[in-house]
Amino acid sequence: MLNLHILSENGICHNFFDLRACGSPTLAKTAPRAKDMQLKPPFLLFLGDASDQLAAKTAAGIVDWRREWCTGQLRLPGCKVDLGLDDLDPVQARAKGASTMVIGVANAGGVIPPQWAASLVTALEAGLDLASGLHDRLEDVPAVAQAATRLGRQLHNVRIPEQTFATGKGTERRGQRLLTVGTDCSVGKKYTALALERAMRARGWNADFRATGQTGILISGRGVAVDAVVADFISGAAEWISPDAETEDHWDLVEGQGSLFHPSFAGVTLGLLHGTQPDAFVVCHEPTRKTMRGVSMRLPTIGQVIEQTIACGRLTNPRIKCVGISVNTAKLGENEAQDCLAKMRSEYALPATDPIRFGVDDIVQHIDKEF
Amino acid sequence: MLNLHILSENGICHNFFDLRACGSPTLAKTAPRAKDMQLKPPFLLFLGDASDQLAAKTAAGIVDWRREWCTGQLRLPGCKVDLGLDDLDPVQARAKGASTMVIGVANAGGVIPPQWAASLVTALEAGLDLASGLHDRLEDVPAVAQAATRLGRQLHNVRIPEQTFATGKGTERRGQRLLTVGTDCSVGKKYTALALERAMRARGWNADFRATGQTGILISGRGVAVDAVVADFISGAAEWISPDAETEDHWDLVEGQGSLFHPSFAGVTLGLLHGTQPDAFVVCHEPTRKTMRGVSMRLPTIGQVIEQTIACGRLTNPRIKCVGISVNTAKLGENEAQDCLAKMRSEYALPATDPIRFGVDDIVQHIDKEF
Repeated sequence: MLNLHILSENGICHNFFDLRACGSPTLAKTAPRAKDMQLKPPFLLFLGDASDQLAAKTAAGIVDWRREWCTGQLRLPGCKVDLGLDDLDPVQARAKGASTMVIGVANAGGVIPPQWAASLVTALEAGLDLASGLHDRLEDVPAVAQAATRLGRQLHNVRIPEQTFATGKGTERRGQRLLTVGTDCSVGKKYTALALERAMRARGWNADFRATGQTGILISGRGVAVDAVVADFISGAAEWISPDAETEDHWDLVEGQGSLFHPSFAGVTLGLLHGTQPDAFVVCHEPTRKTMRGVSMRLPTIGQVIEQTIACGRLTNPRIKCVGISVNTAKLGENEAQDCLAKMRSEYALPATDPIRFGVDDIVQHIDKEF
Repeated sequence: MLNLHILSENGICHNFFDLRACGSPTLAKTAPRAKDMQLKPPFLLFLGDASDQLAAKTAAGIVDWRREWCTGQLRLPGCKVDLGLDDLDPVQARAKGASTMVIGVANAGGVIPPQWAASLVTALEAGLDLASGLHDRLEDVPAVAQAATRLGRQLHNVRIPEQTFATGKGTERRGQRLLTVGTDCSVGKKYTALALERAMRARGWNADFRATGQTGILISGRGVAVDAVVADFISGAAEWISPDAETEDHWDLVEGQGSLFHPSFAGVTLGLLHGTQPDAFVVCHEPTRKTMRGVSMRLPTIGQVIEQTIACGRLTNPRIKCVGISVNTAKLGENEAQDCLAKMRSEYALPATDPIRFGVDDIVQHIDKEF
């Protein structure tokens, strides 16, 4: 059992995970008690020189789910993406109330290219903190590190967890938990959990989205990128993410990662499943995909995912059950999508929906009936 | 998918994993090509002020499996452990041919206590490199870092993987692989794999033990502490550990970790299972244990472990099968041990043995018949 303990250097904080969970018994005794490192909205979204919408999917996710946090967008010459926000420079954004500039664009390798440095420094000088979901650390750009230190600004690298976690304990915690799982990576697990949060809150339920990846963290302001945690602590990190609730009726809606059937990432998926100890799970699927992302293996069936998730998940929660199927039907026409969902409803006797296209009310109603 | 890339600082190398696997297609293109960082035996085993045999189990493991690599032991005042080696100081050990002093003792927290520093520096001055399986890095002790730099010695922190791995691909590799799995942590997975290596080599088979934890790495001179790898790369690390073999008849004997049924570590176990893509596995068990290490959960049955290992393992190797049961009977008398093994043989129709007490010939014969 490894005790990972990376401390921040130069007084620059590398993370921003908030402290609502600090009383959790699953948090390591040795965990550095953070200064208040929560990411501060509203945001100026930095789109850089993004060549297409896919490259800006982090920023697009923030706009989709937290439009009210988005003051504007900053685009460099050559940027081909427009998220429909006001184009603002950092000084204008600050004047309109923005607190943080978020690098909402990804590129191959997750690096911070040299042509971004001037914009990042300008943002710091305008009074904004910086947040990034890239692999590179913001403070590894010398001009950025120097400006942040000089100006007392915060640099948030949300892709790099730097808390200390305890190993998972498997002890039952108060409250209800739902985990989104999938037949593959990138099939809508984050969007499904966010849609469930929105729908549950609209009914007045006590529900919180729990982020496990960089975009989710930027959307919710807290969380842990579990695939970047040291392997010994995956389930411990998941326990930290979805701690003992204050009331029994609280729902944690935990963003799933990978797939139990993905040969690259199933270990992350299993640790997340055990640590989350979900009462309920929703299977997410993309019906037009033939092989799993990045490998040549075929996708499992939804039935296989249900069976395997229950077989593994009952270790830490014997009551685990599937409460719905979430299908990304973006590549299907309206009729095709409806047919696909109807077929799944009849095959699995569960609600099946596309959260973006048709909402998740059926799933929430089903949960209401079952719990 | 995170691309972890920690480079060595101050010219001190932090790892020593050898380069036999460097041609492996599973190794990331971006992996830093190491200087030759293989750990150099023979060893002087540093036992420090170890209070009992358990504290010195890393050193004891090296003596059990690589007696020919052990030049002597170095004990500080108060040390209560004797591994039956000559007591040597670093100068004497160097004169007798030792190349590396290995810290073969663990303590709570895995720290390097201040009272060890003088001995570590003395060893460097005597011409020895240092290797440690502790959590603390050797170079975090300033006097040690300075002496190593000044004298050009190598510091090996085997607990801390610092290669860059690719994510697992699940592609079939040449050669045969066997993984030891368990009903719990610390049930004999490493000793079973080492016993199989010894027995297979005695028959002239082409077989290599593959280490996945710090003691195993010190015993075999290479490997990766998989529980310390970033979660995204568990299966990728396992693919690196057991690469494409040169011949189809080669056996990799991979040291398992954790248990698919352990709520703290099952993610590591699953990633290791998928990455190893074993043709064969042996289930390891400690029959007197009531609850799993560190948690209050009961152990699974051997039958459950067999079933779940096949259910998960067939993702990357549809031919996976159980070839034996390895029982640590140290706490049982001779008759009790024999009864326990006989019962398992009849219940599971598989060879069942205690590798230390009765050898693993039955399992190797069974493998010979099945493959």
